[in-house]
Amino acid sequence: MNIVLLGSGNVATHLGRALKDGGHHIVQVWSRSEANAKILADKLDTEATLQPSSINPHADVYIIAVKDDVIRAVAELLSPIIHDQLVVHTSGSSDLTILEGISSKIGVFYPIQTFSKEKKIDFKKIPIATEGNSSDTLGILSALASGLSEKVIEMNSTQRTILHIAAIFACNFTNHLYYIADKILQDQHLDFDLLRPLIMETAEKVQKKHPAEMQTGPAIREDQAVLDKHLELLKGNPSVLMLYQNFSQRIIHSKK
Amino acid sequence: MNIVLLGSGNVATHLGRALKDGGHHIVQVWSRSEANAKILADKLDTEATLQPSSINPHADVYIIAVKDDVIRAVAELLSPIIHDQLVVHTSGSSDLTILEGISSKIGVFYPIQTFSKEKKIDFKKIPIATEGNSSDTLGILSALASGLSEKVIEMNSTQRTILHIAAIFACNFTNHLYYIADKILQDQHLDFDLLRPLIMETAEKVQKKHPAEMQTGPAIREDQAVLDKHLELLKGNPSVLMLYQNFSQRIIHSKK
Repeated sequence: MNIVLLGSGNVATHLGRALKDGGHHIVQVWSRSEANAKILADKLDTEATLQPSSINPHADVYIIAVKDDVIRAVAELLSPIIHDQLVVHTSGSSDLTILEGISSKIGVFYPIQTFSKEKKIDFKKIPIATEGNSSDTLGILSALASGLSEKVIEMNSTQRTILHIAAIFACNFTNHLYYIADKILQDQHLDFDLLRPLIMETAEKVQKKHPAEMQTGPAIREDQAVLDKHLELLKGNPSVLMLYQNFSQRIIHSKK
Repeated sequence: MNIVLLGSGNVATHLGRALKDGGHHIVQVWSRSEANAKILADKLDTEATLQPSSINPHADVYIIAVKDDVIRAVAELLSPIIHDQLVVHTSGSSDLTILEGISSKIGVFYPIQTFSKEKKIDFKKIPIATEGNSSDTLGILSALASGLSEKVIEMNSTQRTILHIAAIFACNFTNHLYYIADKILQDQHLDFDLLRPLIMETAEKVQKKHPAEMQTGPAIREDQAVLDKHLELLKGNPSVLMLYQNFSQRIIHSKK
């Protein structure tokens, strides 16, 4: 397929590379950021453009991979240029309806992963959630997704938003717990390396099992002596203390 | 070294195996649980005992790998039997002083990892925190630890407890976030498999960098429209809603 990629951030970069590796032709990268557009276009052996008016009007699919709050604005730039081809966005939290009126063929192509610019990733293992405004559109998108990933799942906008919320707990909030752990260690001049193997193992343990079966620690054992000792030590840090108490209560409650 | 292992849970199992693989001789496994003691003794090609009175009095080291609330009781069983050999426990949250009076050589040998019975693990990558009541004791323990792991760090009881608290955030509380994510998906009849690659990647991303550099999601972007939409959708689940708000605030605050 001939694809125009709109955006040059982490999702655009990884998705563009996966599409190219999958045999598709990225005919153009459009982005408001000249530097990023050129970097990505170079990676994908294609041309970059900054001018909305010079967006290629003959592609099969237009993929909008930009922040949620500018998806609609970018889609409206496309609207007068294209000839009713397929337009999709890649967001977990924007509804399909955000593309309404842009084309008669609109859809969503949401890779359920966190991307960093430097780190390569195997797209085959990334689940992709697809949605389309017709069974034809959905069929095209799911076929495109199946070429990139072993796990493609069709879902509506509400399901996708809820999946995105679950992803925020499993990824964004988890990273914030790592951040708190790092701060606690830094206060004692201890290295974060001490926790890195534990962090990997905690993630690996739920790859085959459900987290309910994998819970360990003083809270699930209801070891009150250890919990009290920790709360005592955290007295100087009320914000961390509150979180410790909250999680311990939640974990104890999860047994009932 | 000739070692008696007291306990037959996950720590005793993994540590016993690593010590045996490291060329040490596990002369005996003692446990209150007959079945578990036999299973572990078989794995370690050694004998099991249930009777405190039949604990081998001639070992070089006695390693107590039991729950925090019974460490002292097990140590007191040892006390009349041994001849002042080295006695250590493996707990992150118990002080060295819990072994006071048991022997003149006491210490701590704390592997910073979460163990599951079925899952094998590379002990070389597990940091081990050691403590001893004298430089001689500490020297012996750190040498023993260095034979098993590439990363051995000597620290006192307070530092170890704080390290353990950090580990609880990075492991136990993280697993509880996975649990909440799983529940959110289950309510929508969505499979936890959708999040497994994301969970692995989130852990992998902090293996080289610090979590402060790796934070993603609507909170760090202060994308209020997405945050509001998620809070609206979580209205039916006040406990999860509160946690979502709390974490989002914390993440926004972490930027300042």
